[in-house]
Formats: sequence, C-alpha cells, structure tokens
Amino acid sequence: MIVDGRRARGNRTRESVLARAVAVASENGLEGLSIGGLAEDLSMSKSGLFAHFGSKEELQLATVDHARQMFVDAVIAPAGETRGLERLDAYVEAFLAYLRAEIFPGGCFFASAAAEFDSRPGPVRDAVVGNLIRWRRVLQRAVEDAISSGELRPDADGALLSFEVASTLAGANTDHQLGDDSSLDLARRSIRNRIDALRPV
Amino acid sequence: MIVDGRRARGNRTRESVLARAVAVASENGLEGLSIGGLAEDLSMSKSGLFAHFGSKEELQLATVDHARQMFVDAVIAPAGETRGLERLDAYVEAFLAYLRAEIFPGGCFFASAAAEFDSRPGPVRDAVVGNLIRWRRVLQRAVEDAISSGELRPDADGALLSFEVASTLAGANTDHQLGDDSSLDLARRSIRNRIDALRPV
Repeated sequence: MIVDGRRARGNRTRESVLARAVAVASENGLEGLSIGGLAEDLSMSKSGLFAHFGSKEELQLATVDHARQMFVDAVIAPAGETRGLERLDAYVEAFLAYLRAEIFPGGCFFASAAAEFDSRPGPVRDAVVGNLIRWRRVLQRAVEDAISSGELRPDADGALLSFEVASTLAGANTDHQLGDDSSLDLARRSIRNRIDALRPV
Repeated sequence: MIVDGRRARGNRTRESVLARAVAVASENGLEGLSIGGLAEDLSMSKSGLFAHFGSKEELQLATVDHARQMFVDAVIAPAGETRGLERLDAYVEAFLAYLRAEIFPGGCFFASAAAEFDSRPGPVRDAVVGNLIRWRRVLQRAVEDAISSGELRPDADGALLSFEVASTLAGANTDHQLGDDSSLDLARRSIRNRIDALRPV
C-alpha cells in the first residue's frame, strides 16, 4: 500500500511537471526546457526531477508525448465514432476550438516543435515528425472514407484534399499567433469551399 | 582612402558573418545564435564580432534583416514588373523554387523564426512578424490587382485567396522539411485550382 501511495504521488508529480513543461516548451521551444528551470518554477528539488527524467532528452520526449495526449484529447477524441465528412468536420471544428482556447500558450505545440526540430536529427525530431505524420493520416483516412462512401466524388484527390486541410489549419495557427483572429474563420470557409467543390453533382 | 578600404573590409566581414548567422539560425533558431559560437565557426575574434554587433539582440535583428534581403532576392524580385495573376504565379513559382533550392538549410527562415518568436514580445518578434505581414500584403496586392483588372471575378474574396496562397506555401515548406517532396507539387495544384475556380465565366 505504501508503495502504491508513493507511485500515485510520483505520477501526480510527473503529471504536474509535464503540464508545466508543455507550456514552457510551447512558448520557448523544447530546447528552452531545463530540469533546473522546471525545478525552480515548481519549487521542487532538482535531484527529485532528475529521478523522474534522467536527461534533458528524456524530458523533451516525455513533454512531446504529454502534448500528443493533450492534442488527442482536444482534437481527435471529440470526433467519437463519426466517419467521412462528419468526422473531417469534427476534426476541423475541434482544431479551430483548440486554437481559440489557447490550450498551449505558444499556439499549436506541434507546429512550433516541428519548426524547431525539423533539421535536428535524433529521437526528439522523430517523435515530433511521427506525431505530425499520424495527424495527416488521420485526416486522410476521413477524406478517403468520404470518397469511398460517395459523399465526395470518386475522382476527388484524397492526398490533395488532406494536404489542403492540414495546411489551412496550420495557416490558421500561424496567423492566430501573429494576432489575426480572422484566420480561424477564413480557414473554416476555405475548407468548406474545398469540400463543397468535391461533392457529387 | 584608408578609411574607405577599412569600411569595405568591415562590410565584407559583416556580410560573411550574417550569411553564416542566417544558416545557423534557420537550423538552430535565432536563440541558438551566439557571438562566441559564430566567432569560433568563422575563426574570428569574439571582440571583433562584438565591434560589429553589440549584443545578441542586435545580432538577431541583423540576421533577420539579412534573411529578409535573401527572401526578397529569391522570391519577390523575380516577379519584376508583372501584375495580377502573372505576378501571383511568379511569386508562387519563385517560392517553390526557393524551397527546392534550400536557400536556408532549415527551410523557410521566416516560418521557423515565427514559430520560435511568436510568443516572445520584443524587437526580434516585431521584425519577424513585420516581414510576414509584408509578405501577406504583397500577395494580397497581386490578388486585388487580378480582381480589379477582371482576371478574377469581381465577387472573388481577395482576403480569403491570399490567406489560402500563403497557408498553402507555408504547408509546402512544412511538408518539404518533414521529407515529403510531393508537397511542392500539391501546393502548386492546390493554388492553381483555387485561382481557376475564381476566373470569370
């Protein structure tokens, strides 16, 4: 029982450290993370934090994974059991809501992390890129379901439409971060126009 | 004459430092720049570099300005005296060529710099954001010329089309950095489809 109590406390500590780490990294980058800096922010001992994360790279990887879980909860999970265009629309609306809610203070965590790590080979880049590729696949699957069920024309180009949806949402993030709130509405209209142009006549 | 010779030599030094600084920053971020690191890379004295750039922030600002000049030379200047759709097409092709040529080793300098600095208020953020806003205005002006000259329908939404062009080109940069070369072609097709849909019938 004592062991379980310790483990539960350890997990809570880990969660609170990672919540802070995600916020710091979304504003200052994953390279801006340090075990010493987090220990100070959270009034914890540096040695205690080292017990949770043995190195800066382990801390960065755990932070990316925590951000992934937050993204899944905010953007993927709300789509529930929907399919095809309904699912695609659920992703788009959840993504725009996720930007509006500023779940990460520095905007979309993965857009920042990709720009930071895209030319630094190693496990952190692999984790960031892997998550971006999964997001593209999730979008593409919804688009392909919509084509095969006949909601979109059979000659619709699924690779093109899913690139367009991903780029448009990323563009909404960039412009929102630059202070242009109209970008969320422009992104929604752009994606709807694109889908409408591919509906069967 | 001696003074002029010194000044010319000083300018050449400054140019070579900034060329290196732009390359470093495009891979490791503007925060990854340091006067000491550049001095070591270029086998120069740290005190000599301090004479050119008094502080890290001055070095970052000079680096952003050097990257702006490179972007103008690569993407804006080739459009020459063209107008409207011809100008828009010249920008799109020059931007895709600029990505393909990997003029910045870490992909589009301003995409990386915006992701890094968007939540860090100060002169560096202002310089980065200012350049992005100018790029949007340049695109929007070409779109509006195309509408007012009748190349595009009078009810075409210029703000929407220029958001779409900018987002699509930024998406091509992201995917190209992730190793997906098909993104340049997808971006071209996406933009052409969008323009064709807005031509007068």
